[in-house]
Amino acid sequence: MYWQKDIETMPISALQALQLQRLKEMVRRASTSSYYQQLFQEHGVTVEDLQQIDDIHKLPFTTKQDLRNGYPYGFLTVPKDEVVRLHSSSGTTGQATVVFHTTHDIQDWANLMARCMYMTGARKSDVFQNMTGYGMFTGGLGFHYGAERLGALTVPAGSGNSKRQIRFMKDFGTTILHIIPSYALHLLSVFEEEGVDPKTDLCLKTVYLGAEPHSEHTRRRIEGALGVKAYNSYGLSEMYGPGVAFECPEQQGLHIWEDSYFVEIIDPQTLKPVSDGEEGELVLTTLTREAMPLIRYRTRDLTSVCSEPCACGRTHKRLSRIKGRSDDMFIVKGVNVFPMQVETVLMSIPEVGTNYVIELDTEEEIDVMTVKVEVQSDFFLGDVKGLKALQQKITAALRSEVLFTPRVTLVEPDSIPEAQGKAVRVIDHRQQH
Amino acid sequence: MYWQKDIETMPISALQALQLQRLKEMVRRASTSSYYQQLFQEHGVTVEDLQQIDDIHKLPFTTKQDLRNGYPYGFLTVPKDEVVRLHSSSGTTGQATVVFHTTHDIQDWANLMARCMYMTGARKSDVFQNMTGYGMFTGGLGFHYGAERLGALTVPAGSGNSKRQIRFMKDFGTTILHIIPSYALHLLSVFEEEGVDPKTDLCLKTVYLGAEPHSEHTRRRIEGALGVKAYNSYGLSEMYGPGVAFECPEQQGLHIWEDSYFVEIIDPQTLKPVSDGEEGELVLTTLTREAMPLIRYRTRDLTSVCSEPCACGRTHKRLSRIKGRSDDMFIVKGVNVFPMQVETVLMSIPEVGTNYVIELDTEEEIDVMTVKVEVQSDFFLGDVKGLKALQQKITAALRSEVLFTPRVTLVEPDSIPEAQGKAVRVIDHRQQH
Repeated sequence: MYWQKDIETMPISALQALQLQRLKEMVRRASTSSYYQQLFQEHGVTVEDLQQIDDIHKLPFTTKQDLRNGYPYGFLTVPKDEVVRLHSSSGTTGQATVVFHTTHDIQDWANLMARCMYMTGARKSDVFQNMTGYGMFTGGLGFHYGAERLGALTVPAGSGNSKRQIRFMKDFGTTILHIIPSYALHLLSVFEEEGVDPKTDLCLKTVYLGAEPHSEHTRRRIEGALGVKAYNSYGLSEMYGPGVAFECPEQQGLHIWEDSYFVEIIDPQTLKPVSDGEEGELVLTTLTREAMPLIRYRTRDLTSVCSEPCACGRTHKRLSRIKGRSDDMFIVKGVNVFPMQVETVLMSIPEVGTNYVIELDTEEEIDVMTVKVEVQSDFFLGDVKGLKALQQKITAALRSEVLFTPRVTLVEPDSIPEAQGKAVRVIDHRQQH
Repeated sequence: MYWQKDIETMPISALQALQLQRLKEMVRRASTSSYYQQLFQEHGVTVEDLQQIDDIHKLPFTTKQDLRNGYPYGFLTVPKDEVVRLHSSSGTTGQATVVFHTTHDIQDWANLMARCMYMTGARKSDVFQNMTGYGMFTGGLGFHYGAERLGALTVPAGSGNSKRQIRFMKDFGTTILHIIPSYALHLLSVFEEEGVDPKTDLCLKTVYLGAEPHSEHTRRRIEGALGVKAYNSYGLSEMYGPGVAFECPEQQGLHIWEDSYFVEIIDPQTLKPVSDGEEGELVLTTLTREAMPLIRYRTRDLTSVCSEPCACGRTHKRLSRIKGRSDDMFIVKGVNVFPMQVETVLMSIPEVGTNYVIELDTEEEIDVMTVKVEVQSDFFLGDVKGLKALQQKITAALRSEVLFTPRVTLVEPDSIPEAQGKAVRVIDHRQQH
């Protein structure tokens, strides 16, 4: 039931003692990087200031911008020839960032991933089809190494080529998928086209949904159509990648591995901690990383933390479903909107299909939000009255969520282009934003 | 200088003794698979028939068609839950094939790759940019694991996105590339566009060319433009993938690792062995594989073997540059042509650019071969007379190689679409072939 029982069920006091010890070690190590050396000096903090775990508040935050400023070697704490892997962002939205790993880090990461997968029932007898891109995207190699550590049979399918993916599932008796949620929704329509009923024709039992925030309705829809349990995976490349937090079979939040990460939730405006259960920005400190420790890293992901005991027996805190990244938020008519709010509404309506996109425009200096929604194929072939009624139903549901009236356009199935990798949910045509 | 000196420089008699011992073990193991059990029975052979290494000729060949017939589990010799990886062909040209690996196999493969890379001077201080696709393509994960075993810094760049690739080379001081030769040629023009001189602006010293047969002229062109030594890598997914044979710094053929593979060259018609130095089809027997031993596998690759001592001190035989796969050969006007013959001619002409394609048509029941050739950009902007002369020069050079007159069309740089992955060199429009 547990991959590492002693760690996963460690009493909270022991866990906190371990965290303090590791935090000190991390700060000591971080101080040897050129970037933190200077940052800690500027803030006048040293490892001696850490007498108890709450003293972490004395340390400065690290931001994405810091990573950019320190690019490429500013955060490195080991000689370059000790580094065996790097993962770099694309740099399409500004200066790129990079994260380095030693052999220890790669093994540590694989172990965390194996822990996540084992928690959901994955064993060496499983057949694991890894349906995300490999290479720089940390989701691909992250899960790949975890499955290998577990000893499961890994099918390194990579992304795309849905028909071939389905053939692999059939031919090799795939039991577990790792897939991006928007692609999972798309795959449902390919199953239909191919005349494959995933519930009876395949051996699937578990799906890992990663890399994109997604709604509970999206999860339930995927679970229902595939006849599986779908688990939420959370991570970010600034940490190792996936393996930061993962759902247990209770599906009541994602256990964040506190032996490896110190978790804080802050108010992104005041930067003060918020209470248990209150939403804010997730801040993470690595506790075991060798090549590149990060101290109080502001993830920009919005969530809340729950410290209540979990029925699964694990003592590690749980994160609630990620609402989105603060960067993803957009403002329409003065209202803050997260794409996840729109998705939650859409996926709760059964007639809605598997893809959608939000377009933002300015008309006569007024913001207009248009939501293009694919409709289920059965329903789309029905009468016009039904479509009109559906359009009104979606509009009303969205209005009650975002508090202004969006335009809703219904389109036929598969008419919105599929993304390669993470889905693009918002297209902003406005001049200034 | 050697990754495993004892093995790489093993006296030939000792190597042959090791081969015989391992061959027996392999045949014993293979006999436990359902496919070989039956095949060996049909041929009336058992491991007892192997008294000396030449007795391998008593064993039947294994072909691609056998792999198809045995799909998916016919060749497996371990319980399914001992398998940790599979690589499957796309199955676009018929029934798919699949190769399975245990943890031992993955480690064995990584070790062979590390041996290859170390042989060419790669060390843990190197920065290795892996520019091929990951996932099912064995070249990506094969080199990735080898570099990791070596302790080099791996940049898992994956394929495509040339500008980002060049940024990585600059930012991380990449010293070694793994790249498909047709993509390497394409990259030369991107360097030019980006105003980057790879010889002075980068730290490159070594390039591994794999996955496609390519000519010596192609290699020299890449070496000259990048200021590197380029090494030929040979492998096939039916074995582990890359790591079967690799060039040493002498660049006089590819050492085939005889502790892991037993090599034969046969006449593809008579199936009889050919002499040292004589061209024929490469036949390989795995000597260390656990999940899925293959006995006398007909690779369809055409090459010759050289048993002469090599100046590098390694005792393992050398393969000559792969001429092509017997499947790649096409017949025009009754003449057998390999794409490699055309490439060899083209790449020896300095005015020829970085891409070409061969198109085959039928006109009035006669075969026509048209070679579309990109011209170097400087030259393309020159006068028409020069282009006309170049066209005649290429036509004459091709005619003296293939012994009929092809049509040659000169096109401007970058006008032939780049392949994603292996280049498509021959487009056959003929009705029957």
